[in-house]
Amino acid sequence: MNEFDLIARLTRDLPTNASVVAGPGDDCALIDLGLPDQLLVLKTDAVVAGFHFTEETPPEKIGRKALARVLSDFAAAAATPTAALITLALPTDHDVAWVDGVYTGLRELAQRWNIAIVGGETTTCPERALISIAVVGTVPKHRIIRRSGAKPGDALFVTGELGGSIDGHHLDFEPRLAEARWLADHASIHAMIDLSDGLAGDLRHVLTASGTGAELFTDSIPISRAAKTRGRRGDVAKPALLAALTDGEDFELLFAVPSAEAVPVLDGWRATFPAVRLTCIGRVATQPGLRLRDRNGIREAPAHGYVHFA
Amino acid sequence: MNEFDLIARLTRDLPTNASVVAGPGDDCALIDLGLPDQLLVLKTDAVVAGFHFTEETPPEKIGRKALARVLSDFAAAAATPTAALITLALPTDHDVAWVDGVYTGLRELAQRWNIAIVGGETTTCPERALISIAVVGTVPKHRIIRRSGAKPGDALFVTGELGGSIDGHHLDFEPRLAEARWLADHASIHAMIDLSDGLAGDLRHVLTASGTGAELFTDSIPISRAAKTRGRRGDVAKPALLAALTDGEDFELLFAVPSAEAVPVLDGWRATFPAVRLTCIGRVATQPGLRLRDRNGIREAPAHGYVHFA
Repeated sequence: MNEFDLIARLTRDLPTNASVVAGPGDDCALIDLGLPDQLLVLKTDAVVAGFHFTEETPPEKIGRKALARVLSDFAAAAATPTAALITLALPTDHDVAWVDGVYTGLRELAQRWNIAIVGGETTTCPERALISIAVVGTVPKHRIIRRSGAKPGDALFVTGELGGSIDGHHLDFEPRLAEARWLADHASIHAMIDLSDGLAGDLRHVLTASGTGAELFTDSIPISRAAKTRGRRGDVAKPALLAALTDGEDFELLFAVPSAEAVPVLDGWRATFPAVRLTCIGRVATQPGLRLRDRNGIREAPAHGYVHFA
Repeated sequence: MNEFDLIARLTRDLPTNASVVAGPGDDCALIDLGLPDQLLVLKTDAVVAGFHFTEETPPEKIGRKALARVLSDFAAAAATPTAALITLALPTDHDVAWVDGVYTGLRELAQRWNIAIVGGETTTCPERALISIAVVGTVPKHRIIRRSGAKPGDALFVTGELGGSIDGHHLDFEPRLAEARWLADHASIHAMIDLSDGLAGDLRHVLTASGTGAELFTDSIPISRAAKTRGRRGDVAKPALLAALTDGEDFELLFAVPSAEAVPVLDGWRATFPAVRLTCIGRVATQPGLRLRDRNGIREAPAHGYVHFA
């Protein structure tokens, strides 16, 4: 049973109550506690030694990544994070300097986004370190963005460049919080998701939730330099386009807007975020499934993105 | 470095912001998001295989305990839990029936307290399972209860019976949410904490936070049947009173009220919760430190409660 099957099984028949606006299945949960004009936004995420970082990873980058992953989900909901709880599971012989480093990375990123670290928990995991972070924040009720709103004809956009994140981007990426809020304020974003499992896989999550299909223009997909370099290396043997479609941990935004807004969004974006690429990579279609279109024609995309259980 | 030293080190100089009413150091964090008359309450906690449960523990009881521990912290703040996020770190060869069992236990306790399970995360931890749970909820602004408010002369009360939790209570305890809300509504609770590290250790947390000391009447401390039975067994070799003072995971409430309210609280409690013991076990004093008083006189309490790193 892979991660997605397990999650589908566990999220059946979960208890709910009158406060829940969005539960499992979106990037963040949305709760209505009676805040004027705002919903509460909740998200948790974990990183594990040997899977999301190694013994060679500087601890500051581990702490930074652990928090940045959650903030990337907040970006997908165009939400504003407020406070974080940190859970550290540490080997019995943990090195205090390592823990200090993790907290330095956490602290710097939290400060950058005005997030308070309000508590947490330390516990023992003898064999490997694990860091779990829960973040709460808010989103205006009038601009809730979910995965499920993509409509046939919408233009599909992606921020940044994709693939090869393992070469460093997965530790250094800046969560697209500012970009997401600008998008929510300046366009009719029908659906948005952050790319953690790879473009093809995450786009399928949007399409399934929205009951639509899509066509990607493969020549338009922005491929990172890392993916291109790796594609030329014989030992990796993953063509750059496949890497851009299936590599995990890009932490870029993928979103759908009405096609009439495509040009205004691009123009406004370039004036506001000149250093960040924004690329139209395809369109939402009525016909289910994901198709790749290039000069040579159109074909079905490979069945799975990066399916991980980590 | 033990757990408390590490936490003290990590919680120095953490980023904060204007929303934070109480950060690290109390049972729960309190955040002001602008909810009318309410604060947001946050708490996270984790249980780890081999430390908080064993291979023999029924998975339903593991899931139940993981959530109940967090709810016990909500009780200490007299807060109402609303929604939970579940993080499961699972060995690669995890048994789906075991995971189902964990979720059955979680689900039942969540339903009992009208808590929505709104999301979570599954990840891999090859060697052992870990369950981390974050809960959000609310508390009325006018009845915030913290650890730091105990005043000299206050009567100290404890719910239930203490010690020997390892014999089963740690899996079956009912978080004292209803009792805590009743107390907050019917008495001037100056300080409250849930007993997770043992009476002596947790009382010291209250005394340190409040800048006071205390005297305990050792003959009054309610000792559980499990602690008494274990105390009579040669192999355990921990006197029952010491167990009641130092055993962890009682998950009962310890609180301080003005002495003038002691009798009305006891009378009201007995009429409302006839099945749950409530015992006055001592009083808060000006002189720092923790002293034990019995027929033979008064002496300093042992320096540490149950110091754990789990």
